[in-house]
Amino acid sequence: MALNKKPMTGMKDILPAEMELRDYVMNVIKDNYRKYGFTPIETPAVESIENLSSKQGGENEKLIFKILKRGEKLNLSEAKEERDLTDSGLRYDLTLPLARFYANNGANLPTPFKSLQMGNVFRADRPQKGRFRQFMQCDIDILGEPGNLAEIELILATSSTLNKLGFTGFRVRINERKILKAMASYAGFAEDQMDTVFIILDKMDKIGLKGVAEELEREGFSKASVDRYKELFEKTSQGGEGLSYLKDVLKDHLEDGVIENLSEILDATSGGADGKFSIVFDPTLVRGMSYYTGTIFEIEMAELNSSVAGGGRYDKMVGRFTGNDVPACGFSIGFERIITILMDQGFQVPAPVSKTAYLVEKGMPADRLSEIMKKAREEREKGAQILVVRMNKNKKFQKEQLMKEGYEAFVDFYKEALKK
Amino acid sequence: MALNKKPMTGMKDILPAEMELRDYVMNVIKDNYRKYGFTPIETPAVESIENLSSKQGGENEKLIFKILKRGEKLNLSEAKEERDLTDSGLRYDLTLPLARFYANNGANLPTPFKSLQMGNVFRADRPQKGRFRQFMQCDIDILGEPGNLAEIELILATSSTLNKLGFTGFRVRINERKILKAMASYAGFAEDQMDTVFIILDKMDKIGLKGVAEELEREGFSKASVDRYKELFEKTSQGGEGLSYLKDVLKDHLEDGVIENLSEILDATSGGADGKFSIVFDPTLVRGMSYYTGTIFEIEMAELNSSVAGGGRYDKMVGRFTGNDVPACGFSIGFERIITILMDQGFQVPAPVSKTAYLVEKGMPADRLSEIMKKAREEREKGAQILVVRMNKNKKFQKEQLMKEGYEAFVDFYKEALKK
Repeated sequence: MALNKKPMTGMKDILPAEMELRDYVMNVIKDNYRKYGFTPIETPAVESIENLSSKQGGENEKLIFKILKRGEKLNLSEAKEERDLTDSGLRYDLTLPLARFYANNGANLPTPFKSLQMGNVFRADRPQKGRFRQFMQCDIDILGEPGNLAEIELILATSSTLNKLGFTGFRVRINERKILKAMASYAGFAEDQMDTVFIILDKMDKIGLKGVAEELEREGFSKASVDRYKELFEKTSQGGEGLSYLKDVLKDHLEDGVIENLSEILDATSGGADGKFSIVFDPTLVRGMSYYTGTIFEIEMAELNSSVAGGGRYDKMVGRFTGNDVPACGFSIGFERIITILMDQGFQVPAPVSKTAYLVEKGMPADRLSEIMKKAREEREKGAQILVVRMNKNKKFQKEQLMKEGYEAFVDFYKEALKK
Repeated sequence: MALNKKPMTGMKDILPAEMELRDYVMNVIKDNYRKYGFTPIETPAVESIENLSSKQGGENEKLIFKILKRGEKLNLSEAKEERDLTDSGLRYDLTLPLARFYANNGANLPTPFKSLQMGNVFRADRPQKGRFRQFMQCDIDILGEPGNLAEIELILATSSTLNKLGFTGFRVRINERKILKAMASYAGFAEDQMDTVFIILDKMDKIGLKGVAEELEREGFSKASVDRYKELFEKTSQGGEGLSYLKDVLKDHLEDGVIENLSEILDATSGGADGKFSIVFDPTLVRGMSYYTGTIFEIEMAELNSSVAGGGRYDKMVGRFTGNDVPACGFSIGFERIITILMDQGFQVPAPVSKTAYLVEKGMPADRLSEIMKKAREEREKGAQILVVRMNKNKKFQKEQLMKEGYEAFVDFYKEALKK
């Protein structure tokens, strides 16, 4: 029986043209993040099922690829539910594994620890166009820094990385979970209703403020609260003035320093932006993950409807492993989205070296073949890319094909040695 | 309940020092293989359970991490055996996925296709020191080239990559499955006994020729055959003379051209070796995988007991997917072993840029912080690595710690602006 030549549903083979672009983008990202002092780490693709199911991953926990127990531990006849069959699963993000990593290795890491991770994550999502079940994530995180220097560095590092990849004019939107909550509290929503309120608020991009208000009413919230909420958003402009306005309005709902902290981030990052991107306070920014405890941010590109990077502060996650909370803040680039945009733009990876093909006639005597290989080695040592291939009968066609792969020079080697 | 901070059994967290070495080695490998015309590809970490269990993976198939079916497809109450519960698993090597990849994408790939893969593979092996259940493999393969130009290029590319990593004086051992079989046939072993014979022959390194002969007799093979086999190995020297001897002795057991083909590989690769490594014919080389159909080779370093790279020709694997065989030959570097050796040697990754730390006093006014971030950005644009951190109370200790991370220059920024 023939084997199955297709990749698994929702996963993809990556061909050389895309892979070369990915390698290029990965190098640009790594190179720039290193200049900001981030250091690379890696965690296994597999995590224990207890950690993965710990409610740190929100909706993504429903999408875990679970791994079967092995050997004696797998007792099929006595297994009653899924949990009896599995001890581990594939990671669905890089944040939970990072918190575990820090809990496990913190004693051997500097404070603050600036982490850079690039790795595949797995989600058993419904397959759809442009969305895959295995995809690369690229995260930077700062652990052990309670102050907003973490946010400032993360935003500047990620923005300048996008600049390096040729993107400018994008917008960094920033908000605070504490402001989100204070606004909801000001409107009269109870603490235990807020998750529902925020899920609806998160649809602002698509249905507008009017749509949000209507949906809140349909959900059964009082008209008085919904109106008060709607009015607050209408009066709160984006940017610094919006913050000043809220400082006054929310003074009974918000702890001291939250507004100032956010203002400082806006000021300091604008100074580093060098006119290549903008940063705004956006009170409508929600971000789904329940683990965020403070600032949240996203990068939005005009040419797209959705974000290309997102992150925020999660000061309570490491504590789930150790019992002691550690301040933590991270920013994740939507690597796959960046690749898609660059491919759609027809981005050409800069060719680092000249590409030459040696065409070797069939039946070349061993001593001459040896000389050819030696010559190829010498050229490669000098930095050239040399492809050594058998000469086909239709040499013209062969060279045309090689030109499509970027080979620009050809050397023909015939059995009958001719002095060149 | 606290979550589990340890990585999964047999898997490991990789800290910055090792990760920087890994990144460096990966870049050296990629860079050199590209000069030989290899192009990068990637396949998913997950493959269908049918493909993984297709007897192309030898012993490794027993070590598959299997993934649980999801949703309606998982029917726990009716499941009778493991196969009812799983539809996929983690790949245990990069060769089977490559054959599937080529079967799936061959029409969009050049001929010959020179593939470079670097990726993690997974084996549920018994945990032991220095052996992990997730590890990186680094393979190059040439598909569509029937002649020995494939072997020559693979050997030269891999050897020169090891040279680039600072290794010299290693030995490439090469053999042919057809010669292995002809020698066994000459001794009188039947075709269906050969796998057993080769498993015992493979212990030569450990138990010597005498030990091999004894074990063959214990296994029940006739003394006449065992003696004839032993004598043949005694008379066959390594290198070219050994080949000439076998050409004569095995003439009734070996198809034409096999010896010449191997001689040509030895000659051509020696020419490209530039005195930095040696290559020898070794009739005792077996290599375990049953999918090999022709040449097999390994690289052995004097300082280690085992091989650091291995490969061979497998002309029948792509045909398992498409019905049409495609000549294929590959070479795999033992990436993890290389990393272990370099770490044991105390190898220092060349630092690409100067590393400077900015120490910022707490309570820095926003406008000055903005200036500092701008200055950092300018330095980073010029190529420097700048770490911006809060100044600790014990600044001397903080700087000592940073020096251990390689920071060599420090700039202190105080709230009270002082003209420097």
